[in-house]
Amino acid sequence: MYTLYYAPNTCALASHIALEQVGAEYQTVRVDFSKNEQRSPDYLGINRKGRVPALVTDRGMLTETPAILMYICQSFPEAGLAPLEDAYALAQVNAFNSYLCSTVHVAHAHRMRGNRWADDPAALAAMQKKVPQSVAEAFALIENELFQGPWVMGERYSVCDMYLFTLAQWLEADGVDPARLPKIADHRLRMAQHPVVSKIVAAELAGH
Amino acid sequence: MYTLYYAPNTCALASHIALEQVGAEYQTVRVDFSKNEQRSPDYLGINRKGRVPALVTDRGMLTETPAILMYICQSFPEAGLAPLEDAYALAQVNAFNSYLCSTVHVAHAHRMRGNRWADDPAALAAMQKKVPQSVAEAFALIENELFQGPWVMGERYSVCDMYLFTLAQWLEADGVDPARLPKIADHRLRMAQHPVVSKIVAAELAGH
Repeated sequence: MYTLYYAPNTCALASHIALEQVGAEYQTVRVDFSKNEQRSPDYLGINRKGRVPALVTDRGMLTETPAILMYICQSFPEAGLAPLEDAYALAQVNAFNSYLCSTVHVAHAHRMRGNRWADDPAALAAMQKKVPQSVAEAFALIENELFQGPWVMGERYSVCDMYLFTLAQWLEADGVDPARLPKIADHRLRMAQHPVVSKIVAAELAGH
Repeated sequence: MYTLYYAPNTCALASHIALEQVGAEYQTVRVDFSKNEQRSPDYLGINRKGRVPALVTDRGMLTETPAILMYICQSFPEAGLAPLEDAYALAQVNAFNSYLCSTVHVAHAHRMRGNRWADDPAALAAMQKKVPQSVAEAFALIENELFQGPWVMGERYSVCDMYLFTLAQWLEADGVDPARLPKIADHRLRMAQHPVVSKIVAAELAGH
């Protein structure tokens, strides 16, 4: 039995979808960001990083979306959500996920979490101002260079699709018009219609 | 035969050390950041991201340090640089490397690469001002929570050691006193004395 600590509208959605897709036995615990629960002593006792997702396993706790996604792939190899048998293809999956966490998510985070990197209110405003550009550039590289189609890695549906879908949810709020990213916009639509994805999106909206 | 595109004093050092450690056949190509070669048409033709490292393999090109490191581990399993046989232990390695790329390296990047996230000169200055604090906090979490000792993952030397060593090279320039991080400072010293590490550090300084 796994326990996933998550908050709605965060990158934890990718791990949530993956757990459901592989048929894992899991429960979820919602962390209420509106009450700053992620910084509460209780939650910091579970995850010292004060972030989501955190996945509690029978061996211990795991963090960082790329690591959790690969752990789920390896724990449920029959689900085929990553090319575990091919080191090069797997490296492409890992490189894509690493780009999402270190470049795409970071560009996005400068809109609401700029205080990680500066304190001056004018600097926070300057960061927010550039988010539409930096997020658009990061997604354009995916659109033009990395996305193989019909899925991120080509014919094979993988955890990259779940992670891309998750971060693409933020495009409009980040000031990026999805119409400028036709492959990603079409992918997002197809993902939203996927039975597992739509189930989990609805579950998070309903608070469980 | 692999080709590693690198620049000295960048995170490419981790992949460079790993290639040498496993005994891979490889050559290096130095990308001259002082001439902005990473943005030249020639280099963008190799790696559209305009960053290092990039590892050219006989299958194609790979980017993103966590992905390259795991690819080297899987391509040379006899070197034992990651616990490939244990999904949970491997996830801990991936989580550590993901934290380095998405939190530690990103905090550092606000000193010299703030223009990725803001244009206003005052905002860039405000970012630089917070680097000593944000980098120190990220390393403190490693020091206090993640570092198992004597190596990052405990008794087993892994690619995490190479990557941590690489980013810890920047502490002083980022305004963080390594004396505040005794485990990481001691680790850095032991790594610098490792024959493979010292050979590669010297090679990069010598320009090859």
